[in-house]
Amino acid sequence: MRNELSEIKKMEKAAREKEGIISLAQGYPDFPTPWTILEFVKAHLSEATWHQYTLSAGNKKLKEMISNFLGKEEAHYDPTREILITAGANAGLMATLLSCFQPGDSIALFTPTYASYFNQLRMAGLNPVYIPLKGNSWQVDLDLFADRIRTHNPKAVLICNPNNPTGSLFKKNELIEIARIAAQNGLLILCDEVYSYLLYDSEKYFSLSSMPELKNIFIKIQSFSKRYAMTGWRVGYVCASEHIINQILVAHDLMINCAPSFSQLAAIAALQLGENFVPQFIKEFVERRAFVDSWLQKMKPYLNASKPEGAYFYFIKLLHASPEFAYDLLSKQQVAVVKGNAFGPFYKDYFRISFAKDFALLTEALSRISNYFDPALGKEIFAENEESMVL
Amino acid sequence: MRNELSEIKKMEKAAREKEGIISLAQGYPDFPTPWTILEFVKAHLSEATWHQYTLSAGNKKLKEMISNFLGKEEAHYDPTREILITAGANAGLMATLLSCFQPGDSIALFTPTYASYFNQLRMAGLNPVYIPLKGNSWQVDLDLFADRIRTHNPKAVLICNPNNPTGSLFKKNELIEIARIAAQNGLLILCDEVYSYLLYDSEKYFSLSSMPELKNIFIKIQSFSKRYAMTGWRVGYVCASEHIINQILVAHDLMINCAPSFSQLAAIAALQLGENFVPQFIKEFVERRAFVDSWLQKMKPYLNASKPEGAYFYFIKLLHASPEFAYDLLSKQQVAVVKGNAFGPFYKDYFRISFAKDFALLTEALSRISNYFDPALGKEIFAENEESMVL
Repeated sequence: MRNELSEIKKMEKAAREKEGIISLAQGYPDFPTPWTILEFVKAHLSEATWHQYTLSAGNKKLKEMISNFLGKEEAHYDPTREILITAGANAGLMATLLSCFQPGDSIALFTPTYASYFNQLRMAGLNPVYIPLKGNSWQVDLDLFADRIRTHNPKAVLICNPNNPTGSLFKKNELIEIARIAAQNGLLILCDEVYSYLLYDSEKYFSLSSMPELKNIFIKIQSFSKRYAMTGWRVGYVCASEHIINQILVAHDLMINCAPSFSQLAAIAALQLGENFVPQFIKEFVERRAFVDSWLQKMKPYLNASKPEGAYFYFIKLLHASPEFAYDLLSKQQVAVVKGNAFGPFYKDYFRISFAKDFALLTEALSRISNYFDPALGKEIFAENEESMVL
Repeated sequence: MRNELSEIKKMEKAAREKEGIISLAQGYPDFPTPWTILEFVKAHLSEATWHQYTLSAGNKKLKEMISNFLGKEEAHYDPTREILITAGANAGLMATLLSCFQPGDSIALFTPTYASYFNQLRMAGLNPVYIPLKGNSWQVDLDLFADRIRTHNPKAVLICNPNNPTGSLFKKNELIEIARIAAQNGLLILCDEVYSYLLYDSEKYFSLSSMPELKNIFIKIQSFSKRYAMTGWRVGYVCASEHIINQILVAHDLMINCAPSFSQLAAIAALQLGENFVPQFIKEFVERRAFVDSWLQKMKPYLNASKPEGAYFYFIKLLHASPEFAYDLLSKQQVAVVKGNAFGPFYKDYFRISFAKDFALLTEALSRISNYFDPALGKEIFAENEESMVL
């Protein structure tokens, strides 16, 4: 067997297949897709144009709308040549890995990072080059990056920004330095920006896609899933130079022909009618983050984590190493979390939780995790928040 | 660049991007998705369960319905372990190629066959072993198959049944012999059955999935696209032993996480409410096939093809070789067809047309093709059918 299911999916499967387990494993917005999007889709679903394949590159109007949308962020992409509609960001990345590289090539990643990347690389016959982020706030170690390029000769660097699982942001100066080093050494830059609209400290997001001089080496990977609570629709996009898009397009076509047509319709609706919902989602995530943070304060004897700036994960350090913590927690307290070394080989003392869950579920899950460490503390957290529990 | 767009997609793109071109290139039903399916989807679209990811293997209820549906065809698959919902048949096949084989492995194919297979194999690092079908009715050459196994040691045989582009059926005795030889030599059998419900001569379809003794080597690849006019929804399924499904599942998850949730809802609707439409689609295709056949009679000095038993393609032989026929026809008569060597290296004297087009389009397209060979004949065909033209 060439591949195995990621720890995220293994835990989520375990959680959904048994009664009574609360899952903080897989991360996806627990909000419904905005009703304005649903109504738009319902109103247009009978139009036959949405029933059959679109062209491989995607619906023309949607690409134009994305081009306009990105233009407001100073990212300029030609809708007919530089944008590919994909069946979600993972499909966009997988198609990129299968088309822009040769088996045996290496790709640099800043770890900890999204678990599936490692398996996606392996499936494309590519080798990971790990560049661990440093310090409590997960900063980029530029010297190490430059050094690993010299020693491992990667063909590209893959960045997840905001980063999954840490929720940390790559800062503008870090990204510009990464880009400078990448350009000097002939690396492509693959940037998975699916959480870029879920930021909680009113810091402005910086994307290298706003630097036209990088057009020939920068590949922007985006999704409608997170911003508009649309993970089930499987629709996203990739932006890059025409030359690069033409390669990725072919791989994506061989994988799936085209993104689902009615999901492209829903994406049009999202851009037209979904914007008002985004601040509500963010407000909700900010409150949940504060809740998790106050819980972490109480758990200080056992756990430590820095506050995420974006996305909806905490990457939490166990202060007393416990190698089988995630599976032990699942069996003893029926809470699914993801073990740290799913996100890179150096993180066995960590675990990831998603806080994209409502307060009742979060309260119950966090009190169960507390119980695992200290039953008295677990009861206290539960009692304090009992009114929000409607399990 | 590792890959290139198939000739089918190249021609379809050329056709859709310019006014006045009629495309018989890409094949997809021109019927809308049945309204009963659309209404069901509209009625359930607000249910939040369809807005986010399903489990990687797909929705449980849908898998149970597929298991029941296949059971009536004597194909018995356990819904929880032996069925994977995919984002269409191509995603199912691509995931299979990326997970069940090692780069450098060879796969046998009966040619002519579906153009994308060649590129899908190349993207997965696999080598094709060609087994040309023989005679006017495209029969299986079993001796050649056995011989190629000896000389090329393929790890699997990939069958498209009914075959695209010829529309010919692999007969029961041929399939059983293929299976016997495959089993003897340790080959997996991959069977793409997406056209199996579009048969026009009331011949019963035989699938090797009805032979339980092949469970450990047979992989069934199906789709909702053709049977229910749902190509835009990107939903299909793969059936095999648990061991094989577990491998394909991982690759599919890395490619796209899961099939689109709404498409899985639509697939449930199709199985519940779509059956009545299938005979209507078939009746329509039978009439169109007769129309193309009568045209081919008139074109006998120039063209020759055997009547397809299923699918919606004619694979037509040019009696006077004309290497650039497809592109010449596109430029001179504005009709897009697919050149024969897209379907294997031995078919440069052939071209494929899809007859999944309404009569007005078919009439105009066929008279233009006739015009290319003999302007007088083109006018005659047009005049005979003028009343059906509403271009």
